Order: sequence, then structure tokens, then C-alpha cells
Amino acid sequence: MSFPCLDAVESRTQEIVSRSMTNGPEPSYTTGVHKKFTSKDPLLLDYGGRLKEFTIAYETWGNMNADRSNVVLLHTGLSASSHAKSNEDNPRPGWWEKFIGPGLALDTNHFHVICTNVLGGCYGSTGPASIDPADGKRYATRFPILTMSDMVRAQFRLLDALGVDKLMASVGASMGGMQSLAAGVLYPDRIGRIVSISGCARSHPYSIALRHAQRQVLMADTNWNRGFYYGKVPPHLGMKLARQIATVTYRSGPEWEQRFGRQRADPSRPPALCPDFLIETYLDHAGEKFCLEYDANSLLYVSKAMDLFDLGIANQDSIRELRQKSKHKLLEGYSSDSEHGGGENEGCSLALPRAPYTEQQLNRDSSQTASSDDDAVVSDDLVLGLSPMRDIPTLVLGVESDILFPAWQQREVADTLRKAGNTNVKHVELGQDVSLFGHDSFLLDIKNIGGSVKSFMGE
Amino acid sequence: MSFPCLDAVESRTQEIVSRSMTNGPEPSYTTGVHKKFTSKDPLLLDYGGRLKEFTIAYETWGNMNADRSNVVLLHTGLSASSHAKSNEDNPRPGWWEKFIGPGLALDTNHFHVICTNVLGGCYGSTGPASIDPADGKRYATRFPILTMSDMVRAQFRLLDALGVDKLMASVGASMGGMQSLAAGVLYPDRIGRIVSISGCARSHPYSIALRHAQRQVLMADTNWNRGFYYGKVPPHLGMKLARQIATVTYRSGPEWEQRFGRQRADPSRPPALCPDFLIETYLDHAGEKFCLEYDANSLLYVSKAMDLFDLGIANQDSIRELRQKSKHKLLEGYSSDSEHGGGENEGCSLALPRAPYTEQQLNRDSSQTASSDDDAVVSDDLVLGLSPMRDIPTLVLGVESDILFPAWQQREVADTLRKAGNTNVKHVELGQDVSLFGHDSFLLDIKNIGGSVKSFMGE
Repeated sequence: MSFPCLDAVESRTQEIVSRSMTNGPEPSYTTGVHKKFTSKDPLLLDYGGRLKEFTIAYETWGNMNADRSNVVLLHTGLSASSHAKSNEDNPRPGWWEKFIGPGLALDTNHFHVICTNVLGGCYGSTGPASIDPADGKRYATRFPILTMSDMVRAQFRLLDALGVDKLMASVGASMGGMQSLAAGVLYPDRIGRIVSISGCARSHPYSIALRHAQRQVLMADTNWNRGFYYGKVPPHLGMKLARQIATVTYRSGPEWEQRFGRQRADPSRPPALCPDFLIETYLDHAGEKFCLEYDANSLLYVSKAMDLFDLGIANQDSIRELRQKSKHKLLEGYSSDSEHGGGENEGCSLALPRAPYTEQQLNRDSSQTASSDDDAVVSDDLVLGLSPMRDIPTLVLGVESDILFPAWQQREVADTLRKAGNTNVKHVELGQDVSLFGHDSFLLDIKNIGGSVKSFMGE
Repeated sequence: MSFPCLDAVESRTQEIVSRSMTNGPEPSYTTGVHKKFTSKDPLLLDYGGRLKEFTIAYETWGNMNADRSNVVLLHTGLSASSHAKSNEDNPRPGWWEKFIGPGLALDTNHFHVICTNVLGGCYGSTGPASIDPADGKRYATRFPILTMSDMVRAQFRLLDALGVDKLMASVGASMGGMQSLAAGVLYPDRIGRIVSISGCARSHPYSIALRHAQRQVLMADTNWNRGFYYGKVPPHLGMKLARQIATVTYRSGPEWEQRFGRQRADPSRPPALCPDFLIETYLDHAGEKFCLEYDANSLLYVSKAMDLFDLGIANQDSIRELRQKSKHKLLEGYSSDSEHGGGENEGCSLALPRAPYTEQQLNRDSSQTASSDDDAVVSDDLVLGLSPMRDIPTLVLGVESDILFPAWQQREVADTLRKAGNTNVKHVELGQDVSLFGHDSFLLDIKNIGGSVKSFMGE
């Protein structure tokens, strides 16, 4: 009786251990050559942490025009690098290879496209794997909690350095679709137009739950070691498991129905508890491919930042207040203990709430409840929150088969913007007759996603 | 900096270890007193395994009438015991407490209701935690792979022993909704009517993927020890993580939107990587509650049996052929090595397929693809497979907000039965205006689920 799926995990550990004799066991996360911008000015983060200095990795395509008015800032999804498109320095295909280029969705005959690795990431930008300048050691889980807005602030430092006063457009999908909106709220005067694809104006509990499950299986890997695995065997099993869950959320049932159906990987063999159906070997493969490609701590911090995303005015006000309170830190000296602060008297909290969850009385009289799907009521909290984007032409794209950022969330963005007085909102929803790829459509559907972006950018 | 969610896991391990000084560390899985039926005749399983003998735990409510014609067999979901309803022997509320009783959905003024713990389960029926009579040791992962039909065969052995020739009805929800249909296909002459709630005629890749993720995180727990954890610390962390993923699949987005929204468990504290939002503490709590309540190996085997479920004629034919080939085993002697066989020359395979998954060419011309949602085409394979149920009045119930057994699967069952010539099919689909509870509606929605069952049973 054999469990080759577990054997595979053990051999990988062995392989990493033996590799470490030479080079240090942790993989070097890179997608190749990229440009670097380092800000020596400190950055105050929304929840009170601060970075004494930070680096942003970025790549560009197309030429910047003389008055620097043709710049498109492209925001990435959770695990992507700045390498959106191949270039001379790095000919490897990028994650949006067929959407960027002469005549393509982001037309490099007209635009200068900039893509960054997010703050908190592991592909060249400052993140948990980086050295804390205060003590020369890796941040690990001493890295401060950060938000979408913090990532956008770091991007605009880069734009400042490049002398770009105003973006032609802020464009992004998935987490990038959150950021393109966050940029519109933070810097409305510096943005010409906005494209938000398969994004949202705030995370909803179902997507929080799905990311929570990924973080929990990752943190359960003993190799994670509460974040201090650098120089040791990284939590590759936890990463593999987390990626499998993520992959389930990125694709849709109807596509899998057609692609995998109920095919077994090897029908001549009896059923197995290890991967057996073709869909299982596909997920296993997706986990294998990813498990050493991305830093586990970056996954935790960036995933958490997505959960914390909420452009409602109440959240904006409370963050503004927090920032006001912690502003003094920018003037103080730095030590490795003081940086990673969350609340007033405690460090970055990674703690459970004081009281565990207690079962609540459910309202089971379903006649009184309304569906968020059918009776979408535009919330005043969001209308006020998105009102800075009132005058920015905006394209909102959604995909009906997306379960992670369901189509009602993009409808919510569009409806909210219109209610906030924006008369230049274009909303496109791709039905299941058009796109079956769920959340991943933004990577795959050149015709419909790419086509909509191109026509909006050319308006 | 603290990680109380990890501390909690470590204290539980410590607690179990210290408990083991007295009583053996593994929890005793029980929901209380129940009846037992033991078959001394061997049972041949679909994939070639056999059980020399087996026990089925069961409970009953209401009186059996003189000609034994009022028996309702109630099939359970994955993790449920036979304790569907409180009774004198066990006053604890059952999992369908408010659906069984005088005047309720299954009206005990008229019916004698029997509920069993499934074969492979851990609440009194023979399963992986049971002693293998061949060697006096626990089966663990030497237990043979089993199917929904195997579970139903075991139930009908019980009915034989009770002298019940024909059921008034075969009723079930979730996995039980698979079994109530499997019973109709295996024993059409012994069933008066069928109720299948939030079930399906075959598992689809998306639900396989979601169960795969649960099995993988469970098997990754080193305490699982390839199934041989009896007498040691059980894989409580893996079970907790698996249950959290399962809980995400049991509920629906719209309900969580209303119930949890974006509430944080303790807004006065800074954000945390451990559970932080209320939805996270809810999932954590659900995992905590379950992690020692169910046997990990039972979860793996029963979950796998759900994946293998396919009432299409091709699968039925291939299983028939397999059974024909392994029939001879019923006449042979027993030894612990020979029982757990899957294929011809190998034991119960828990192996990976020979070739790993290779990325396949996707058909990206989405205009050629059709949605399984919109253009449901009834498959001949299923029509032939369900044709034994042609003359059995059947109620098929689905819930629009169910993501695990989506409503198109119940539509498929109803359409298929009708195409197979069944003129007595009633199909009810609860929209989001009626039920927001997703897959769990069958446990919660007394008015709509209970009401439909009651009226169908009274026809």
C-alpha cells in the first residue's frame, strides 16, 4: 500500500535540505531582470506600521511621451510579479503577455505601461522576506500588516520619482482591480481613467473565508515556523495545499465540467485516496508548480490585505483616524521593535480575538431576508467612499462564472459610482455563454476582456 | 507577537497526549445509544474489496405496522450518525430533529422511520476504525474502497433482517440524496417512493475538487500517519482544517453577507493573521467543534465514495463487470492481506496515477462552448442509468444558493427521470428569495424543505 502523494512531499523536503548544503535552502523568488526604485523616505502604513525605506520592482513597455501624459499603471493579482509582458531584458512570457503590445488591449504604440511588484510581495519589492534595515535580519512575521492603499501609496512614490504627475489610466484585475479603484479614491486628481476587472470595492465574507482557509493550511505547516523559515526548509507543503484551494476559487464549475468531467487519470487502476480523478491531478499539479515559486509570508500578508479591503467611507474614516494617531512615528527613530506596530500598545497583532466565536441566533424566517444577488441596494457607505472617483471615466468588467469576485460585486461598483454622480461608467458583464473561465478569465479571454479594455482605452 | 490559533492546536495535542495516559488517546466516536445489526454473511464491495462480516448501527422512530409496509429508510449526509431524532434511549436532539415526529415531514403517526450510520462511518457501523476480524487489528487504511451502492447494499441487509420487503420510501439529503437514488437503481422493486434533496446522480468535478482539498489537508497532517493513528494522537489539526473548508461549501455567500458581513471579531484590536473577521472565527469554531467528533479515516473513505458516485449506465456496467470478476472472492478463505483488494494484482490502491497531470490544450474559443447551466442536455448515459426508477414516484429538491450540489444537478436528475419515462417526478427548486442557506438548507429550512417532503409523503 503506497501514498505517493505523501512520498512526493517528503522527497521535496529532502531535496531542499540537500540543496541547502550549498546555497541556502530557500528558493530565490524571481521572474527575471527588472528595474528597481528605492524610496529612502519612510512609509507610514494604514495600521500604524512603518517602513524606514522600501524598494519597488517594476517593468515598463512602450515609450513615455514628452509630457509624461501617456502612462498606464497596471496593478497585479495576488501572486504576480512585475513581469506582465516579455521584453528585451527578460524574454520569458509575462502574465498578461497577449494583452500588452502594439495594437493590443494596452497598446504600446500609444501608452507607456508600468507594472510593479506590490509592496509586501517577493519578486523584488520590499516584503516579509526582505532585510529589516533596523537590525539586518529578515522581517518574517515582524513585517507590518499592510493594506491595498499602502501598496498604492508605494506605487505613487515610484510615479513621483519618474516625474509622472497624472496617469493616463489605472488598470488592474483581481487584486489589481481593487487597487485601480483604491488609487482612484486616494489620488483622484492624478488619474485619467480607471479599469477594474473582476475586482470589487470591498471584500465579502465568502472570499474572506476562502482566503482564510488558504492561510490556515499554510500556517499549519510546521515548516512555516510562525514565519521564521528563512534559511530553513520553507513550508512547501502548506503552500501546495493553499494553492490547490486557491485554484478551486480561480476557475469555474462549467469549464471543469467540459474539461475534466468525471475522467479518472488512469482508469485501469483502482480508486485511490491520493489524486485519482483528472481534476485532482490537475489541482495537485497546480500546487506543485507554485509551492516554491512564491514566498509563504508574502502570501499571508497580501492575502490578508485583500480581506481588509473596504472602500466604504466608514472604513476610510477609521483608517484616516489611525493614520493621524500614528503620524508622529514618521518623526521618531527606528528600531526593529518599534516598527511593526499595529495598535497602540501592541505589536502587529497576529492574535485571536479575546472571545471565541459564539453561535448566533439566525434569522430563519427567510421571508424577511433579501438576496444580495437580486435586490442589490447601493450602500450609502460605499457611495460616499467612492465619491472621489466621481469625475473619472471608469470601466468595470465582471464575469458571471467568477465565484471569488462574483459578478454582483462589479455590478455594485458600477451602480455605486453612478449613484455617486459618475456619468462615465461603463459596465460589462461576460455571461456564461461568453466566458466559462471564472475568475481567471482576465488571464485568458483576450477577445472579450482584452477587447473591452482596448475599446475603453481608445475612447 | 503571538499566534494563539497555533497555540490552540498545540495545547489540544498536549491535552490528548495526557488523556492517553488513562484511556487511549483517540476519542470514542458516538452519538449515544443505538441499535445494532450484524451480518455474518460476507459483503462483496464494488471495487473488489470484501468484508467478512459487518455491523450497521441504526435507530428507529414510529411503529412498524403489521404488514411492514410503512417503513421509511432515511439516508444521512457524510458525517451524520443514525441519530436523526431524539428518542427515549438518547434524548439528545438529532440532526433532523424537527423533520421527524408526529405531524412533521416524516410523520411518525404514519411511518416507521429507520436511519442508519453508513458502512464506512464511525458511529457504530463497520468502518476503518473497526477491528478487522481477520487479524484482530484496526482496519485503518487497509479498509477497502467503498461506494454509495455498497452502503445501500449494507442497509438492505438490515431491511432483510427486519423482514421489510418493500420500503414505503427511500429518503435522503446531500450524500443521502445520492443514496436514495442509488437505492432506486439497485432495488427498484423494493421502494415505493423516493425523495432526493440537494443530491445528484453523479458527482461533478467542482465538488470532487472541494472534497479533494479536504482530504489533502487531512492527509498532510503528520498525525494522520497514513491512516495508522489509532492508539496515538489523531490528526485533529487536519480534521479541523478539512472541516473549515467543508463549512465554506455548506453555506452560501448571501447568507454570510447578512450574518457576518465585514464585521471583525474584535474591532478594537489591530488586524491579525490568525482568525480576525467574524466569518473567520466562525469557521475556526466549526473546525474546533468537529475535529475530534469524527474519525479521520471515515472522512477519507466516505468522501471518496461520494466522488466515485455515478449512476450513468457506463459506470454501472463497468462496476457490474468488476463485481463479476471478484465474485469468486466470496467463496474463498479470509486473510487480512487478501481482503482489501482493489484491482487484480494490487491491494486497495492509494497511489498516484502513473503519469502526472500534463497541461492540456484548452478550447479557448468560448463561442463553441456551452454552459452546463443554461443548456442542460440530458445525457443518454444517465437516462439509461436511471431507467430502473421509471415507475417510482420521485421528489427532487434543490436549492439555488447551493454551491456544492448546485441546483442544475437536481434539475438534471428530474429531467433525466422524466426522459427515462417516469411520469411521476416532482421537482422543487428553492430560489434565493426563499432559502439563503446553500447546501445546509436541508438541515435548516423546515418550512420549505420539510413542507415539500411532507406533502409528497402524504400523496
